[in-house]
Amino acid sequence: MNHIVFTHDINTVLTDTLRPYAPDSIFFLVDTNTRGFCLSIIDRKMIAEQNIIEIESGEEHKTLESVARIWSVLSSRGARRNAVLVNVGGGLVTDVGGFAASCFKRGIKCVNIPTTLLAQVDASVGGKTGINFNGLKNEIGTFSIPGSVIIDSCFLKTLSDRQILSGFAEMLKHALLKGGEHFKEIMEITPGQMRQDDFVDLIRESVNVKAEIVENDPKESGVRKALNLGHTVGHAIESCAIARGAELYHGDAVAYGIIAELFLSVNKMGFDPALYSRIRRFITGMYPPYRLSADADELYTLMLHDKKNEREGVNFTLLRQPGSFTIDNYCCKEEIVEALKQLL
Amino acid sequence: MNHIVFTHDINTVLTDTLRPYAPDSIFFLVDTNTRGFCLSIIDRKMIAEQNIIEIESGEEHKTLESVARIWSVLSSRGARRNAVLVNVGGGLVTDVGGFAASCFKRGIKCVNIPTTLLAQVDASVGGKTGINFNGLKNEIGTFSIPGSVIIDSCFLKTLSDRQILSGFAEMLKHALLKGGEHFKEIMEITPGQMRQDDFVDLIRESVNVKAEIVENDPKESGVRKALNLGHTVGHAIESCAIARGAELYHGDAVAYGIIAELFLSVNKMGFDPALYSRIRRFITGMYPPYRLSADADELYTLMLHDKKNEREGVNFTLLRQPGSFTIDNYCCKEEIVEALKQLL
Repeated sequence: MNHIVFTHDINTVLTDTLRPYAPDSIFFLVDTNTRGFCLSIIDRKMIAEQNIIEIESGEEHKTLESVARIWSVLSSRGARRNAVLVNVGGGLVTDVGGFAASCFKRGIKCVNIPTTLLAQVDASVGGKTGINFNGLKNEIGTFSIPGSVIIDSCFLKTLSDRQILSGFAEMLKHALLKGGEHFKEIMEITPGQMRQDDFVDLIRESVNVKAEIVENDPKESGVRKALNLGHTVGHAIESCAIARGAELYHGDAVAYGIIAELFLSVNKMGFDPALYSRIRRFITGMYPPYRLSADADELYTLMLHDKKNEREGVNFTLLRQPGSFTIDNYCCKEEIVEALKQLL
Repeated sequence: MNHIVFTHDINTVLTDTLRPYAPDSIFFLVDTNTRGFCLSIIDRKMIAEQNIIEIESGEEHKTLESVARIWSVLSSRGARRNAVLVNVGGGLVTDVGGFAASCFKRGIKCVNIPTTLLAQVDASVGGKTGINFNGLKNEIGTFSIPGSVIIDSCFLKTLSDRQILSGFAEMLKHALLKGGEHFKEIMEITPGQMRQDDFVDLIRESVNVKAEIVENDPKESGVRKALNLGHTVGHAIESCAIARGAELYHGDAVAYGIIAELFLSVNKMGFDPALYSRIRRFITGMYPPYRLSADADELYTLMLHDKKNEREGVNFTLLRQPGSFTIDNYCCKEEIVEALKQLL
């Protein structure tokens, strides 16, 4: 399990985190967005200007080229195996940086400082790193646990409403997997509450849901597939959006994916149709309307590439009810096409 | 520890190895050398022509481009996470293929069939994968244990004398680390004996020396550094040769490296000078003369990039006597320059 620290004092925690590693060099990875605001929160005494590595922001730069750029800087600056890479940014930065660190000299330590809600509740746990390749999301990557993850709510104040909503979709997913009181609390949240200080308690609970699942199955051979809820359809929608150059947040795609996959759950697992309708209204009332011009055939073809498929068909995590999930449910094309209609 | 099978019946063993993985697709990675002779030894019934991936042979192709090529084929052929990559070739193929497999969809299984003596005694054990980057050997890679390694002596009959000698340098290194009877046996070998059938027994013993060390330290945090004997100088020599386009076998570089590092052992660890001279004669009597035009400064600068360095200076494994090694010995430039003179 990785080491996650929740704090309101990023600089003290980062200093304490780095000390035992005794690194002889520290590199900071940022993207064009986080270099300005987020890096400036970190004490300049810790940062050597020439050890800042900047990659382009945006999913279209989650590429092998960005990784090669990081490797080039590390290599030409003579980074040794006990160098540390500190990733300051959203999921793009922590995924790309985590992958780069896991392969540089066969693995150097990294510390993740997720600066978006999405990265805090999702990318912070589980040790998945990756880049897109051949038009497919996270086609290349490793399982590699960061040395530490530091979550400071001060970064949330730098986010737009849509970025906050994007992270909230993963929190909704965690709540659906967990059920009980946590699910009830999440279903009562309004966007306005997501910037309030006590929202941090919900973040911590949400992170714990994921941490518990990952701990039981670090390499995704079983129960971890539960975290795929909403993502089989969601990833296909996102791949399509990338291919079209359409602006779409990851969380929007996951929110749409949750609708489609809960519909499959109603039809195949006896999920309560009334609760499905309530969740659908909750999502459509909060997220922008689904506007992608992809047809069902195109989305289905993309789903066939999903890493979780181990035989013909598409592998879904479905729910019997909140808190009761079932993995490895293969659905056929007709069922999937029907579910996709729920988005229109 | 990975699973190593010594056999004279590659096809039966490969079939038995693949069965429990129940892969829905099997890919064979070869290079331009092994596609012809080595792949033809494998039963065609196991090989789908369109699932053969060929990369260029030669150290200069141990690149990110070769890895990207493998990923492209796997991805566009729709390989899933339970696909298996069978690497048929020397260390280039098993290192590059192992790296590609360890990152494709965050890791698919691979089976290594090393076809050179070098790959059989060295690359077969330990789970190091890698590619060269920024002019540095194995700068990028992972620790990733193959599902199985299959060693069949029939492949040795396809090798030139120089290729056999190249592998033998690693066997000499293992013998120096092991000491005792095994060291005596190795020091009595003549090149002519290296193709005889009973040479396989020495190969197995040699592999066991490495396996024992690796098992005690899979991530190279301590004792595994012993395997670096001859390689700190050897890798620098090899990097220089690559930069100059000079033809040099890995084992030649290691053999030269052993001379230099045993000289350091004489000066710093009290290694017996008479035995040093005997080993030096053994090596120079067998290997081509050292002819690289690199000066000591250039080699020293390259050594400073060695992954094992954790502080200023260059980190060596040295010997008190055969069978008694000591790791993490930092030598200064003057000592290293003196040792390099022993090669001339």
